[in-house]
Amino acid sequence: MTRTIVESATKTAIIGFDQPFCVIGERINPTGRKKLAAELEAGDLSTVEKDALAQVAAGATVLDINAGVVYNSNPNPNETEPPLMRKIVELVQGLVDVPLCIDSSVPAALEAGLEAARGRPLLNSVTGEEERLEHVLPLVKKYNVPVVAISNDDTGISTDPDVRFEVARKIVNRAADFGIPAHDIVVDPLVMPIGAMSTAGLQVFALVRRLREELGVNTTCGASNVSFGLPNRHGVNNAFLPMAIGAGMTSAIMNPVALPVKKAAIAEKRAEAALAGIVLPEDMDDETFCRLFGLGSTLPGPGKEMEAIRAANLLMNNDEASAAWLRFNRPAGGEGDGRRAARSGGRRRA
Amino acid sequence: MTRTIVESATKTAIIGFDQPFCVIGERINPTGRKKLAAELEAGDLSTVEKDALAQVAAGATVLDINAGVVYNSNPNPNETEPPLMRKIVELVQGLVDVPLCIDSSVPAALEAGLEAARGRPLLNSVTGEEERLEHVLPLVKKYNVPVVAISNDDTGISTDPDVRFEVARKIVNRAADFGIPAHDIVVDPLVMPIGAMSTAGLQVFALVRRLREELGVNTTCGASNVSFGLPNRHGVNNAFLPMAIGAGMTSAIMNPVALPVKKAAIAEKRAEAALAGIVLPEDMDDETFCRLFGLGSTLPGPGKEMEAIRAANLLMNNDEASAAWLRFNRPAGGEGDGRRAARSGGRRRA
Repeated sequence: MTRTIVESATKTAIIGFDQPFCVIGERINPTGRKKLAAELEAGDLSTVEKDALAQVAAGATVLDINAGVVYNSNPNPNETEPPLMRKIVELVQGLVDVPLCIDSSVPAALEAGLEAARGRPLLNSVTGEEERLEHVLPLVKKYNVPVVAISNDDTGISTDPDVRFEVARKIVNRAADFGIPAHDIVVDPLVMPIGAMSTAGLQVFALVRRLREELGVNTTCGASNVSFGLPNRHGVNNAFLPMAIGAGMTSAIMNPVALPVKKAAIAEKRAEAALAGIVLPEDMDDETFCRLFGLGSTLPGPGKEMEAIRAANLLMNNDEASAAWLRFNRPAGGEGDGRRAARSGGRRRA
Repeated sequence: MTRTIVESATKTAIIGFDQPFCVIGERINPTGRKKLAAELEAGDLSTVEKDALAQVAAGATVLDINAGVVYNSNPNPNETEPPLMRKIVELVQGLVDVPLCIDSSVPAALEAGLEAARGRPLLNSVTGEEERLEHVLPLVKKYNVPVVAISNDDTGISTDPDVRFEVARKIVNRAADFGIPAHDIVVDPLVMPIGAMSTAGLQVFALVRRLREELGVNTTCGASNVSFGLPNRHGVNNAFLPMAIGAGMTSAIMNPVALPVKKAAIAEKRAEAALAGIVLPEDMDDETFCRLFGLGSTLPGPGKEMEAIRAANLLMNNDEASAAWLRFNRPAGGEGDGRRAARSGGRRRA
């Protein structure tokens, strides 16, 4: 049973074949978040604080920390990223007790994060690119940490899953040369967008099985990539995660927090209510309005993906918390009721 | 590639390894529906009409017809079920053009349904029970129809999945003695309630793979049985269906229609709104109220399970309709965009 041990100063997260799916919170990452990047440039880390607390509250058991900023005042990430990585790591591990995942494409930022992090963080990432292998594997060895291995190499990302499998195998072999065991490598087989490649789902399910059976490694992915460019992304993501878990995927780098209701949606619903002749108290705040009108919440909370993951954990029988919960919520009659339920309850929704 | 052909007079439904998941609508069934049973006894078939239309509109491609009534005026189903089966089959195939699934535990009702149904209905069901094998397999042969095979026998439903697999194998072998090919047998491996048996999910995923690989048969199930007795059944069902599809399940007998909003929920929300000081127009009907307050609809429509199945079909790349839709909704840049999306879009929710 492959187990990858990730630790903070006080807490252990296990990524493993016999473990509940490991949710690595992706939110602390200024890439593509212009507002966050500007805040960080101004020395404001309040969003990082909020994202750390909200993700752990929503169920993340590891937090990814990416400090990939391009400041207006300094466009060189080799200079700006290492000190920011250190600052964020120190801030976050002072706020929450979950282990961290140090995420950068800048080797000096990886090392800064490794120095600052207590316990045994996950390093994110090595690839099959020669330069990357040479820079990152010595760090993995030196700090004795597990590492995410992304299955692209100097030729790019192959659309052929067999090529991506061979890249993963190459990384595992190269790591072995450094004395790094396979159970400390978490392979990201790269989930392609299904809108660009209709076999993307089948590919990744088959790859996850092979990686698990042939290389004995844990796996992770940027789960939401599968729905990139599609309408109703949540519907697709919510089916993808259980299917990937069923295929043997053991972790994902993802957003565990529900998106807040957009101001535009609130304005639209308020206008719709007014048109229908509904009179609201003048001082009704947005949160109350959203709750009453079924829009969700303006406050952070677990997203639908977390519900899908929890159900999948139950169905894979590997969620200790769910198992404990079930002991207290067993249907009347217990085991013996299986037959009756299979006969009658089975074909009828409650 | 195993394919089970089910036909109405004008339409073909294929259950198959390379096909979209086949949704067999379960609603036309008075078992456990006292109101429907009373209506049928009074000769009122209006609910059957509504259920037939709503299920097909929601995406069912086969409709199950079960006439299992116990009338107050006549408690003998051997007398009441065959004529009622005939009547419902004739009514439904006059209303909708999808193939039917003739469902009864009364052999004479099965035969009445087979006589009345046009095309090539699915017969539901044979089991491993000797009496049942002797009664049903000759009907399957005589009418040249496919049949659902439930994996219990004279000893009951085994909690051991290996025993259930052997029951399925026995049925397939006995059918072969009658000249019935494996591709005309759709095995129901029996989904146990996870609340009574925590390995129920793992069991059925493993069974479905074995049935497919070793016996070459299609599979079906009463999907909602997995969540019997649990709170938030929909959350569990919505993860189970994609996982079962990923494991190779090719059909389910299920309710494709969303449950209507309950009157109690509407009353509760109206009271909550009044307490919050919201003034509604006096003549606001329930449907408008539900739409405005995000309660869903009082009218029938596809349930969340259908969204999960549609997404799973996409991810299994076996939904022709979804594939056609994707051709027109490809993200800008097409295949070549995979890399960019995998790099940036992948780790960020839209």
